[in-house]
Amino acid sequence: MSPAPPRGFTEAEYRRRCETAQAAMAGAGLDALLLTTEADIRYFTGFLTQFWQSPTRPWYTVLPATGKPIAVIPAIGAECMARGWLDDIRCWDSPAATDDGVSLLADALAPFARIGLQRGRETHLRMPLDDFDALRAALPGVRWGDGTEIVRETRLIKSEAEIAKLSHVCALVSEVFEGMPEWLRAGLEEAEVFRRFKIRALEVGVDDVPYLVGGAGPGGYGDIISPPRERALAAGDVLILDTGCVFDGYYCDFCRNWGIASVDDAARRAHETVWDATEAGLAAVRPGATARDLHDAMQTVMAAGGALGNSVGRLGHGLGIQLTEPPSNAAFDETVLRPGMVMTLEPGMEFAPGRLMVHEENLVVRETGPQLLTRRAPRELPRVGS
Amino acid sequence: MSPAPPRGFTEAEYRRRCETAQAAMAGAGLDALLLTTEADIRYFTGFLTQFWQSPTRPWYTVLPATGKPIAVIPAIGAECMARGWLDDIRCWDSPAATDDGVSLLADALAPFARIGLQRGRETHLRMPLDDFDALRAALPGVRWGDGTEIVRETRLIKSEAEIAKLSHVCALVSEVFEGMPEWLRAGLEEAEVFRRFKIRALEVGVDDVPYLVGGAGPGGYGDIISPPRERALAAGDVLILDTGCVFDGYYCDFCRNWGIASVDDAARRAHETVWDATEAGLAAVRPGATARDLHDAMQTVMAAGGALGNSVGRLGHGLGIQLTEPPSNAAFDETVLRPGMVMTLEPGMEFAPGRLMVHEENLVVRETGPQLLTRRAPRELPRVGS
Repeated sequence: MSPAPPRGFTEAEYRRRCETAQAAMAGAGLDALLLTTEADIRYFTGFLTQFWQSPTRPWYTVLPATGKPIAVIPAIGAECMARGWLDDIRCWDSPAATDDGVSLLADALAPFARIGLQRGRETHLRMPLDDFDALRAALPGVRWGDGTEIVRETRLIKSEAEIAKLSHVCALVSEVFEGMPEWLRAGLEEAEVFRRFKIRALEVGVDDVPYLVGGAGPGGYGDIISPPRERALAAGDVLILDTGCVFDGYYCDFCRNWGIASVDDAARRAHETVWDATEAGLAAVRPGATARDLHDAMQTVMAAGGALGNSVGRLGHGLGIQLTEPPSNAAFDETVLRPGMVMTLEPGMEFAPGRLMVHEENLVVRETGPQLLTRRAPRELPRVGS
Repeated sequence: MSPAPPRGFTEAEYRRRCETAQAAMAGAGLDALLLTTEADIRYFTGFLTQFWQSPTRPWYTVLPATGKPIAVIPAIGAECMARGWLDDIRCWDSPAATDDGVSLLADALAPFARIGLQRGRETHLRMPLDDFDALRAALPGVRWGDGTEIVRETRLIKSEAEIAKLSHVCALVSEVFEGMPEWLRAGLEEAEVFRRFKIRALEVGVDDVPYLVGGAGPGGYGDIISPPRERALAAGDVLILDTGCVFDGYYCDFCRNWGIASVDDAARRAHETVWDATEAGLAAVRPGATARDLHDAMQTVMAAGGALGNSVGRLGHGLGIQLTEPPSNAAFDETVLRPGMVMTLEPGMEFAPGRLMVHEENLVVRETGPQLLTRRAPRELPRVGS
């Protein structure tokens, strides 16, 4: 296990992120971006806190056409934000009786005539709609534009410092997955399997396990997004665990499958099919290929392998400060792969009615092709506890 | 430790939740509510999954004037949603090239003339703004109303089944906090303290630790929302840990303080002051009192105890399926306490420049007054590792 990379980022890195977005803003005729979500604000300011679990307070960041972002935030976050690289941090005591930050935000936005919002695919506005209406009323001269593509494109290409964090968390979780045959066996409650996984992940060094889903069933599972059920693993089950663990705010997102005590032929073949599909996806990864190309390469293998369908809607996606980021490995997504993009390959298929098989690996796109961040799963569905 | 309460809820409980909201909808002239967030959808449908960590897909639930909610969701969630009590689950393969659920949602909303949104304090609309505009364009005859108060009021009063889950997680975490003096000492890195806490919480039976913040500093801390710093605890530090752990989707939210090896008099007095303020808050809890009354009772004690200020904006809040829920123990919040409300009391103050002391307990409002869910902290700031 290599040592953990340093936490945080240099000021130069934040400056580069802002300048990348600002160059695109100039091209789009936007004077400022209004950011409201945890991921977007953290990306440009370094503001890292679990306090976003509380829905009570809105948080705002304004990225102007030049210079550093301006934070407009509840006073409870002032010290945490000041640890970062910002100079201009404007605070109010929140929650407030009325005007919960709206006029402070309007003041910060007043110098700008055309302001970009995040309003497209995979976004939402994290502020009360009433406050958004009040903000627009307070700024009648503003033309509200769309900054979705600008933020998306800026976040899409990861720096080496970001890749080091992603690589680290993928390596940690690879170790946890590889150690599971030592203790996974029939008779364990699903909830106990989940609990042991989380503890082990924390022990090896992840900061948190915000995402652990999965399930088991005889010969296969039918659901890949649920919490554990009150059911003990039984011989003949296929178990999947799919996890997003974080290190310094960066996610892995991959899954592994195991057969409990015995594995039937259909499940074994399905695992080989999704593994082969992943190989085909890896072979298709190169700068200039598209997310669609990855989809098509994986889908071809699964169709030949007898896939009945896939309700996931895509075969992998971008990865970074969120569990899932653009693009989507889907027939509709023509995003061109470029060096520094971090992706998952996630071929999944229904191989028999009600029985799914999903496989996932994480990689970074390099000039020469894919560099795996996860340690490759074996082609043969591992059998444990027998 | 009492045994864990059963997971999930009866269909009768979900029916009661819907009927409570529906009665208020009738009074407000709303034909339906549109719900988009994890908490609101889970509350009315039972849909419990960490898949919300992925921002890619929108999820919708329509609560009509009568009958069960209608789910309009990505197909990947169909099986998980079907485990609950709903009959009408409409799915599309998401992400989609265009129209990512919007026309399916418009169809579900078409029978309704006046539809309530969540648009007030502490809410946001979890769907792309572009899709919201498209939805409104697809339903030109709809009058969009405000359902914020209806959902807020419905969720405010917890059932005994909900209280059992909240009580359980508070008891588990009380045990973890009480055991910390066995291992907490100078020299431990803050990150290691956080890691051990999370592991111990999982070991005693919480499902997850989505929220753990805190910090330490000589004679006091200045920030209560940050992740751990790369710093070892030193003699004379005051450490705070504030956590929201969950059991079956229900949160505790409380904190504890410790002096490392030694405690100076100012910190000791500040802890006694916030503890006394909590006593005053507890004494004020009774049906008919207001959230403001709780604030005033606690604030009076802290002002007499030399508080310089408080940047938190309130002295506690509601608690349930989110880390923080309405109401706020604040001078502006006249919400009347009623039996079944679950609240935190969280007096916090700056007792010297840059040095905070925050204390928190969780309770349920009963006919006779408060019932503590957390095991009461000692008045004297505990000293550890000496």
